[in-house]
Amino acid sequence: MIAEQTLTEHYYRVRLHSEAICRGLETEDYVVQPVADVSPPKWHLGHTTWFWETFVLVPNVPNYRIFHEDFSFVFNSYYETVGKRVLRTDRGNMSRPTVAGVYAYRAYVDEQMSRYLDTTELSPDLYALIELGLNHEQQHQELLITDIKYILGHNPLLPSIAMPVHEHQAQRSGQPILIDEGVYTVGYQAPDGHKAGLFHFDNEEGSHKVYLNKTTLAGNLVTNEEYLAFINSGGYQNFRYWLSDGWAWVKSNTIQAPLYWHQVDGEWWQYTFDGLKPVDLEAPVCHVSHYEADAYARWKGQRLPTEFEWEVAAVHSGAQQFNWGLRWEWTNSAYLPYPGFITAEGAVGEYNGKFMSGQMVLRGASVATPEGHSRPTYRNFFQSDKRWQFTGIRLVTQ
Amino acid sequence: MIAEQTLTEHYYRVRLHSEAICRGLETEDYVVQPVADVSPPKWHLGHTTWFWETFVLVPNVPNYRIFHEDFSFVFNSYYETVGKRVLRTDRGNMSRPTVAGVYAYRAYVDEQMSRYLDTTELSPDLYALIELGLNHEQQHQELLITDIKYILGHNPLLPSIAMPVHEHQAQRSGQPILIDEGVYTVGYQAPDGHKAGLFHFDNEEGSHKVYLNKTTLAGNLVTNEEYLAFINSGGYQNFRYWLSDGWAWVKSNTIQAPLYWHQVDGEWWQYTFDGLKPVDLEAPVCHVSHYEADAYARWKGQRLPTEFEWEVAAVHSGAQQFNWGLRWEWTNSAYLPYPGFITAEGAVGEYNGKFMSGQMVLRGASVATPEGHSRPTYRNFFQSDKRWQFTGIRLVTQ
Amino acid sequence: MIAEQTLTEHYYRVRLHSEAICRGLETEDYVVQPVADVSPPKWHLGHTTWFWETFVLVPNVPNYRIFHEDFSFVFNSYYETVGKRVLRTDRGNMSRPTVAGVYAYRAYVDEQMSRYLDTTELSPDLYALIELGLNHEQQHQELLITDIKYILGHNPLLPSIAMPVHEHQAQRSGQPILIDEGVYTVGYQAPDGHKAGLFHFDNEEGSHKVYLNKTTLAGNLVTNEEYLAFINSGGYQNFRYWLSDGWAWVKSNTIQAPLYWHQVDGEWWQYTFDGLKPVDLEAPVCHVSHYEADAYARWKGQRLPTEFEWEVAAVHSGAQQFNWGLRWEWTNSAYLPYPGFITAEGAVGEYNGKFMSGQMVLRGASVATPEGHSRPTYRNFFQSDKRWQFTGIRLVTQ
Amino acid sequence: MIAEQTLTEHYYRVRLHSEAICRGLETEDYVVQPVADVSPPKWHLGHTTWFWETFVLVPNVPNYRIFHEDFSFVFNSYYETVGKRVLRTDRGNMSRPTVAGVYAYRAYVDEQMSRYLDTTELSPDLYALIELGLNHEQQHQELLITDIKYILGHNPLLPSIAMPVHEHQAQRSGQPILIDEGVYTVGYQAPDGHKAGLFHFDNEEGSHKVYLNKTTLAGNLVTNEEYLAFINSGGYQNFRYWLSDGWAWVKSNTIQAPLYWHQVDGEWWQYTFDGLKPVDLEAPVCHVSHYEADAYARWKGQRLPTEFEWEVAAVHSGAQQFNWGLRWEWTNSAYLPYPGFITAEGAVGEYNGKFMSGQMVLRGASVATPEGHSRPTYRNFFQSDKRWQFTGIRLVTQ
Repeated sequence: MIAEQTLTEHYYRVRLHSEAICRGLETEDYVVQPVADVSPPKWHLGHTTWFWETFVLVPNVPNYRIFHEDFSFVFNSYYETVGKRVLRTDRGNMSRPTVAGVYAYRAYVDEQMSRYLDTTELSPDLYALIELGLNHEQQHQELLITDIKYILGHNPLLPSIAMPVHEHQAQRSGQPILIDEGVYTVGYQAPDGHKAGLFHFDNEEGSHKVYLNKTTLAGNLVTNEEYLAFINSGGYQNFRYWLSDGWAWVKSNTIQAPLYWHQVDGEWWQYTFDGLKPVDLEAPVCHVSHYEADAYARWKGQRLPTEFEWEVAAVHSGAQQFNWGLRWEWTNSAYLPYPGFITAEGAVGEYNGKFMSGQMVLRGASVATPEGHSRPTYRNFFQSDKRWQFTGIRLVTQ
Repeated sequence: MIAEQTLTEHYYRVRLHSEAICRGLETEDYVVQPVADVSPPKWHLGHTTWFWETFVLVPNVPNYRIFHEDFSFVFNSYYETVGKRVLRTDRGNMSRPTVAGVYAYRAYVDEQMSRYLDTTELSPDLYALIELGLNHEQQHQELLITDIKYILGHNPLLPSIAMPVHEHQAQRSGQPILIDEGVYTVGYQAPDGHKAGLFHFDNEEGSHKVYLNKTTLAGNLVTNEEYLAFINSGGYQNFRYWLSDGWAWVKSNTIQAPLYWHQVDGEWWQYTFDGLKPVDLEAPVCHVSHYEADAYARWKGQRLPTEFEWEVAAVHSGAQQFNWGLRWEWTNSAYLPYPGFITAEGAVGEYNGKFMSGQMVLRGASVATPEGHSRPTYRNFFQSDKRWQFTGIRLVTQ
Repeated sequence: MIAEQTLTEHYYRVRLHSEAICRGLETEDYVVQPVADVSPPKWHLGHTTWFWETFVLVPNVPNYRIFHEDFSFVFNSYYETVGKRVLRTDRGNMSRPTVAGVYAYRAYVDEQMSRYLDTTELSPDLYALIELGLNHEQQHQELLITDIKYILGHNPLLPSIAMPVHEHQAQRSGQPILIDEGVYTVGYQAPDGHKAGLFHFDNEEGSHKVYLNKTTLAGNLVTNEEYLAFINSGGYQNFRYWLSDGWAWVKSNTIQAPLYWHQVDGEWWQYTFDGLKPVDLEAPVCHVSHYEADAYARWKGQRLPTEFEWEVAAVHSGAQQFNWGLRWEWTNSAYLPYPGFITAEGAVGEYNGKFMSGQMVLRGASVATPEGHSRPTYRNFFQSDKRWQFTGIRLVTQ
Repeated sequence: MIAEQTLTEHYYRVRLHSEAICRGLETEDYVVQPVADVSPPKWHLGHTTWFWETFVLVPNVPNYRIFHEDFSFVFNSYYETVGKRVLRTDRGNMSRPTVAGVYAYRAYVDEQMSRYLDTTELSPDLYALIELGLNHEQQHQELLITDIKYILGHNPLLPSIAMPVHEHQAQRSGQPILIDEGVYTVGYQAPDGHKAGLFHFDNEEGSHKVYLNKTTLAGNLVTNEEYLAFINSGGYQNFRYWLSDGWAWVKSNTIQAPLYWHQVDGEWWQYTFDGLKPVDLEAPVCHVSHYEADAYARWKGQRLPTEFEWEVAAVHSGAQQFNWGLRWEWTNSAYLPYPGFITAEGAVGEYNGKFMSGQMVLRGASVATPEGHSRPTYRNFFQSDKRWQFTGIRLVTQ
């Protein structure tokens, strides 16, 4: 829980970090959308601002004047409730509002928010809403980083850019984590003395018991060197290692290596924020899909952990030992509701529940995750073919 | 376990049932494939026969002469390992082999199988393989029924046909099933005195413990009358009830009712094997997707059971009371491996494991399931948008 | 013009020829539709019958009882005016009506037509309508042949079938045709003494003058041997020979040879009604698209004729000399209306005019064209990528 | 022919006009590509510059240093000959090179070009190449205007922008043009005293004779008011007026009016460079496809002219009388080669010939066409469904 006296300060710190991520961008980089999954950086900056305006300022500040009616339309991600406009368009086709306009929007809303936060005694509900807004913005900070990487990594010039992320740091040496058979409690639980608990998302609430078999999780993530052995042994050519859907994905997209890898004259290179670099053999493999993670595990005769095995390992071992945080780690758990999960009313309620279908859970955090944003109970989720996030592989070894 | 002395008899009973299902078909009905999910009846009859020839006769009968080389190619569903032929084609484009040719293939293989079974002392492995073949054929019997319904139900003449299935029997009155909180064992377990156990699929093996919260499952399936209330209240028009993917499916396919329902002059009719009939209000709703089942549950403020809640309810209550078997019941569990699941080697190993991605589990059985084929631990699975099977809805009421 | 006394006889001759084409088919062959361009043979037999019932019998025979209401719906190709039914379906998904049902439909309508023709003094309009119906049926006879070839030629068993067509007869030795510069009259003209003229389609009416430059047309069609030289010189790999759309077609469909050609162990084979046969080097190349015909011509440094060059050559030389009739010959003329072309009122008016967009004209006739059906002014037309008709190439050599 | 002493001047005038068109753009507007037909303005500015560098400077200026190797790759439209790069991408995904980079590229090439033109005695071939380059740039100037309109007209903010184009000027009153039956010469002919002729494209060369019937062309283009009558009479709902492909286009795209028209509260508005404005009833209708032009003509019981009727009318009447230049006028001629057309060798040869398939000819010019760029023999061409150019309708009235 954020100390109340510093809330404005904390608000600014988060807000400025979004802009810091974009510091190295050219105006043009803010605008494009190479694939549907990736949003233009401009859109992330506008959308997070729209959240503050729509959910905090408009309902709570008397006589609040919205910055511009069009911005509400353009930066709304909840299209289902809108639909009154004549024109539909894709985010990546919208040259207007301009980048400068978006920054003006941010400045205006930040000014209003700071005035509001400085002068208001927040109710617990409003306080919770502001925490949600900050965490929402942090989620978009990670997407900003991954989307910028996608945009520049698919530009034929493969430009480098200053970005506050150490993509390819090697991992500390971890220790295998042994889980004993038995009943464990999973899901978010308030720490002692915190009645309401610290911030967490609705999808990790619903603390409940699960029964786990005896298991050992690897202390380290799979490295590029290890993954290269899979490639070199023909892993992408042999259907036996692949889920049926995964094999169809490999064939129809002619997948041959992780995203951003390019083979030039027999050598493997990867696009990074520093441009094209030789693949670093010691770094944990990155930008693999769930299909690839699963196929790698089968090739090794092993498997991916479930999300609860991962959580128990993370909670019951020191972070030092378990060594998580460099890559979002694919689990073999589908993203489904915990017992008692209820979708909140209203637009905020669309947050997590409606995506509980067809996606797999990732646990941990990545080099692109804002500091303090994740925790052992955090549930990230993507479809099995997605790999533009900083995703990696941890195996169950026994 | 089938009494050994009657194995040939049992083989014939299963084989003849496949043909009995097709008795009312015209030759033309055997050939078409309106959508990729549906296979031509001819293909089912050939493919099940190919199984016996390829996995039993060829490896075990000395000097066995295969019926026809082309049939091996055409009726093989394991395309990954074949691929030697010049020409690719879809099942629904293949007028040859003819229906008469397929029946001749069946007769030839049955003759060979019966001679083999009558004269051979089966090893436990071969016995298990034959049980697998019989269960494989039973699975295709259910698909034959659902595929024939799809083919005729999408013909503008909406023809009726004699079919050994009571599609719309009303359910007996069931009782809510209360599950206490605690640890339960799920998955297939051999009954006392059966060391190897009775037949079951690899995906239900791996008996293991799960922890369940206190839950009550409805004693009855949702009826057409109840489902109609959802339709009439605008359920298909309100995105709030739908998973995100489900809503996209509703919109892009303009879904407005279960499959086979047609609104004529304000009244709802449904296609049945007896032709177009008024929707029977008391019968359990049928041919709904997981998306629809989930949306219905949300609209009621309730939810679908997990596959383990279902299994525990089925095992710990009498079948009488729980009243399952009319519809495959959508659960809210993704189809994933049990602890310790290992994919078997070879082509038979492709059976279940490679589909453990992107599908939801259904439990129970339907009016189209062959007698004795299902059991409380049986795991059926389909993608969330599929609804040509006889699928229904059971709610968790508390 | 058909001698009036023999009209019934002529009607029967045409009708029976449709059935003769299908004599070698299995019931299953009548039903499938591998691609949208190809109709199931059953549909052709029903549709041509529907024409007689709808346009001749229903409006002219008092108290005529239609054979079956459903058949009118199923065999109608003019879907725009119908649309009242609940259910849409594709021709290739319809197992019903059965083949036997379609033959019964034909027998019923033929019986009614023969009674009508025998007992009625036909007005000139009705006489013209019947001629149109006979020519319509002849067009479908050619489609029956090409569609059957496609269905069997895309079956992995590559079955042979008895078919009254000499696919690969070699051409007689022809002579180059020289056209002098000047004004020529093209389009259908009634022969002397025929005031109304003989039968012809609306699209060839509108006799008019064109100005042609001096030109020489080849006396022979391009042979398989000549076309093979194009293949072997890398013609399908070099974009310089191809129209932009043609090159996109080659790439996205990985086209490497004419339709039905298969390379087996370095040798070229082609599917024929007699099964897979080595490519006959002397026969005229067949089953090429307009794109391929155009690319071949460019590779030779030559070009395709316009439809008017072709017509003038055909009219002003003996058929012997010009040697047409084995292949429909792609011209480089777009299918557009002649001066004064007017679309007739009503459903019959949909016949030709609405297709005058995006298609190229073919002139001549093929081995699959019914005897007497074509003439030098006849305009056939298909999109540039189509090649399941018996299409070939004639060059302008100067 | 441009007076030789002013060639540098003329070069600069054309080059600066490209930049003048973009003067009102925001940086973001240069980058996006809402549909494949539309290129980002940045690309047009780079591509035209690449033409000068690649075809004039590199082969002719000793020791010329290209501006940047990547630009050659990115701004090359002749992708067939390149393909050496690892990465494929779409124009609209490329944020780099930046707009500033493209302007620097232009400045560098212009500087080099001016030095070259000032110091070199041009051979006739080089002179012709420079004229081609200038006309090429003018074609892209018109595309710049139409693409900018598309980009802004599909932005939900519908922004206005300063643009040197009078989109909606009313037409002067024209006179019907009567063409007598007979032989006419069409295609480009050098004026007396010009042996080589003035600049013209390869596709209008090959002056030749055609025979025309007696015809009258309308003196005026169809107005918005006239077109509105077609809309209001249900023109978009009645398949009888439409070509088969046109009707499929209407249905699958739910077309209901010309591009940029929006119906708001029963009134028709259209997007213009001045933002959303009421439809001006007197202005000629704009942004219609060939399908719409053809359907309108049929609805009127009339037809579109052929390209030769149009050319003869334009040549044999005063421009005053015939009144062309406001809209590109759809003809009913397919875009095909003139007699004797030969595709030039090399990359410049790809200019026009390879597009002679599947497109219709438009004649005249539009408000967006650079002054002096068009002429009565000019052949513009687009597919029948395209309508983002300033296209309009002239009818043949008799």
